[in-house]
Order: sequence, then structure tokens, then C-alpha cells
Amino acid sequence: MFDSVTIVGVGLISGSFSLALKDLGLVKNVVGISRTEASAKKAIELGLIDETLPLKEAVAKSDLVYVAIPVDSTVTVIREIMDLVSEKQIVADAGSTKHALCTAMANHPMRKRFVATHPMWGTEYSGPEAAVHDAFKGRSCVICERAKSDKDAAETMENIYRQLGMNIVYMNADAHDLHAAYVSHISHITSFALANTVLEKEKEEDAIFELAGGGFESTVRLAKSSPAMWAPVFMQNRDNVLDVLNEHISQLRKFKSCLEKENYAYLWELMEKANKIKKIIK
Amino acid sequence: MFDSVTIVGVGLISGSFSLALKDLGLVKNVVGISRTEASAKKAIELGLIDETLPLKEAVAKSDLVYVAIPVDSTVTVIREIMDLVSEKQIVADAGSTKHALCTAMANHPMRKRFVATHPMWGTEYSGPEAAVHDAFKGRSCVICERAKSDKDAAETMENIYRQLGMNIVYMNADAHDLHAAYVSHISHITSFALANTVLEKEKEEDAIFELAGGGFESTVRLAKSSPAMWAPVFMQNRDNVLDVLNEHISQLRKFKSCLEKENYAYLWELMEKANKIKKIIK
Repeated sequence: MFDSVTIVGVGLISGSFSLALKDLGLVKNVVGISRTEASAKKAIELGLIDETLPLKEAVAKSDLVYVAIPVDSTVTVIREIMDLVSEKQIVADAGSTKHALCTAMANHPMRKRFVATHPMWGTEYSGPEAAVHDAFKGRSCVICERAKSDKDAAETMENIYRQLGMNIVYMNADAHDLHAAYVSHISHITSFALANTVLEKEKEEDAIFELAGGGFESTVRLAKSSPAMWAPVFMQNRDNVLDVLNEHISQLRKFKSCLEKENYAYLWELMEKANKIKKIIK
Repeated sequence: MFDSVTIVGVGLISGSFSLALKDLGLVKNVVGISRTEASAKKAIELGLIDETLPLKEAVAKSDLVYVAIPVDSTVTVIREIMDLVSEKQIVADAGSTKHALCTAMANHPMRKRFVATHPMWGTEYSGPEAAVHDAFKGRSCVICERAKSDKDAAETMENIYRQLGMNIVYMNADAHDLHAAYVSHISHITSFALANTVLEKEKEEDAIFELAGGGFESTVRLAKSSPAMWAPVFMQNRDNVLDVLNEHISQLRKFKSCLEKENYAYLWELMEKANKIKKIIK
């Protein structure tokens, strides 16, 4: 049981994390840090946090500081927090990229109090209103460079995530960023691009709305995601994302070529190959 | 209340249609026509159909013949059925393309007994086991060339779909195929291509499985769809699908270019533009 936890960012991930800690009775008091007063107020209203304080005071009273903000701000903010913490406190992040952060933290004197985590859960919504109870359940949480964290710090975070119903997976930061490009970042890019395709081509919004039962909704869902959260992810992980994106464009060109040449056999073969994803994703 | 309805095809759509008719008490007996004995047997076991008969006998005893099979077989099968029906019977299809079928039926002497319909509902599964209760609800059903159908035939189909909870939308066949390419067919192609991308690049199947919480599942869901059902759709609607596919590749290239040039502002702009889909898809 923590006396006090600080969440930096009061949105989808941090807010849902706070709700989970409260629901499990793992924390007495949650302090929220937000860039805007409106979000902080909303987070208090919604019961995500109990109070808001300046960062320094918040860190001073907290056993755990949990950072879930856009990844382009994470390095600066985590460093600021790490400069403040003692050997008894824990700092963890929930960001979608890990290489830049882990590299930046590598030589920090308090590196061992930091645990690099990425709970693989999310929705297309953002802000305090997006936080939900029972998030994270049944999903995986990646922990990077576990050996660089103090054992008690890593174990505390693992125990929390396990109590949230998550399965812990260990990776180094580079492997994390590579795999995340494949199974998360590219899905977001294709979804954003699909939304733009349809918005560009289909001028009859009523038709989109009325006919959207045909598979469009699930494919385009992620296109509602926040640019503030995702643009920095794509940029920080650009080499991996570009690599997968190039492959994806080349896979789409194969479909294009089948249709152009009316090569029915190859079209069928491409689709049968894609069906193999059934074995992996139930 | 129909004494007897024949469903041609005993899969996802026809099976769910039959279950809905039965659940609503709209039919006494459902005859199923299947290419394979195994599917027919399964459909009886699952209560989708009451019996199976040769097509001629099935049509002879049915008030309504409902065809939901791959669109490359639909024209031939519907023509065969239309050659058998009387002025009192109704024939309807549920196919994902309409131009080829409506053109082929245009001069058939019984054209007026045919109603071209496309209920915009589906899942990535196929076969009798894929049929579910309460399908179709809350979705739209497109009816094409309504004026070419007898009023009683069109009204009967509309009433059934309304009782299923569907919203009726009218379009000509060309408009249907164009809109279907935008909001359904392209989603399937991107999903198939995404599955192939990830299967090609990500050799660690465990990583896909473990990390798939990050948006991948919903984007790749449609890649599990049946080639037998979808390859003919893409091929019959190839001009429209190619047009949207070209646009989609060009939209993906914009993301690629942003990342290559580290053009953060334009990346943000593309994502904000995509966010506009929120206004259309809730």
C-alpha cells in the first residue's frame, strides 16, 4: 500500500492506472500533474486524482512517480524527477518508445530507481475523460532493461501490473521499439492513412456514416488517436516505422498489381497468406 | 409468415439471416442449399436450416429464395433460380457487389421478382459455424434498383430487414459499388496487406501474440476473412477498388515522406486531418 503516488499526465493511461490502483486499494492518495488547469480539475472531478501540486512537492511526498505523457516530453520530465528522488522512491514511465528514454537515462546517478515499462493497452481516446476502470487486464506489459533497475523497484512495478491482470514480458529497449513498430505503430499509421483516403475520396459523408458496417469502423478506429501522443512516437521510432511502412506499401502494391493484371490466383494466394494471422491472433 | 424460405449458401450471412427469420417467427421451414454435404449437415445440426434439397425442388416450395454465396457464382445461380420462379415468389441476394449482378439480370423476364440487397454487416468468420443470432441490428441495408423490382417484392424484403433492425438505404448499383469500395473493400485490402507486412517482417510470432494489445488486433481483424468470399468482390469491383487503393498508397507515402524528412508539422497535420473521421464514425 502506497501512501502517495504521483501521476504525471492525467489522461488515458495515467488516469486508468490511478483508477486501477485505487480500485485495488493499493494507494491512499494520488497526486496529479497536468499541463493544463482544466485537465487537473477534470481529473479531480472524475476521481482520477485527489490533489494537484507543483512537481517538486508532488515528488517529495510520493512513493511512486508514474509518467504517461507524450514521448517527446518524457525524457526531460523523467530527468527532472530523477534529480529529485531518493533511494526509496520509484519512477516509472508508460511510453510507447523506449530506446531514446533508456539511452538518455543510462548514466543518471539514480538510474536504478527508474523502471522502463510499456503496458500494451490503449484506446483511441485521450484526456482525463478517456480513463476507465479495469483497463490493462489480459494484456502484456513490457519491461525494458530490468537489470538496470533496483530489484525492489522492478518487483514493485511487476507486482502492480500483475495485480492489474497483465502478463509481464522482458525486452531490451531496441527490441521493444522494433516489435512495437510492427504490432502497434504501423497499425496506427495505416489507420490514419485510411481515414485520409476515405475522407479524400468519399465526399458523401452520409454514405460513409450509413455504410460503415462493412469493416471500416474497426480498421479506421485508431485514426481518432491523438496527434500529440502519436506524432512523437512515430518520430522517435522513425527508422523502425519507416522500415515497416515501406514493407506495407510494397504489400499493398502486390494487391494493386493483382487487380491491374487480373491475376486471380496470386490475389487468392496473398489473401490465404494473410489468413495465417489467425494462428497468432485469436 | 413464410411457409418456406430457401437460403443458397449456408454460411455467415445466409445462416444469420435464417436464424433471424426463425427468431422473429417469420418462417416455418428453411431449406438450405450448400456446395458441400458437410456444410449442409453442419447447418442442420446448428439449426440454421431444417432440410436440404436439390435447387429445383427447394425453389419450387419456397416463397423467398435468399442467395448469399461468393459473388463470382451469384450471377449464374441467380439466373438459374430466376428461370424457375413464378410471379408470386421473391429472389434476393446479399452480395457485396451489385453492378455485375444487376447488369446481368437487367433483361431477365422475371427481373421484377428479384430484389438486389446488401446488408452491411459481417464478421471475419465464414461457414455455418459463423452464423449468429441478432446479426444485422443497427446497420444499414442497401437496396439497389428498387424501381426494377415489383413493389410487393421490394416491400417484403424491406420489411424483413427493418424487423432485423436495419436501416434501408437506396442506391443505384454503380453508386453502391463505389461507396462499398470506400467503406468496406479497401478496409479489407489494407487489413490483408497489414497481416502480410507483419508476417513478413516480424519473425517472432510470440512477440506478435504477446504485444498485440497495441491496436494491431482491430486493424488486422479483417485479414482473417475468406479469400473465397473476398477475392471475387475485389475482382468484380476492381476499377473502384484500384482507384481507392491508389489513393491509399499515396496517403501512406505522405506519412513516409514526413518521417523521411522529419517534417513534424506536416505529420501532425496529416493526423489532425484523419481525426476528422471522428465526426462521421462515432
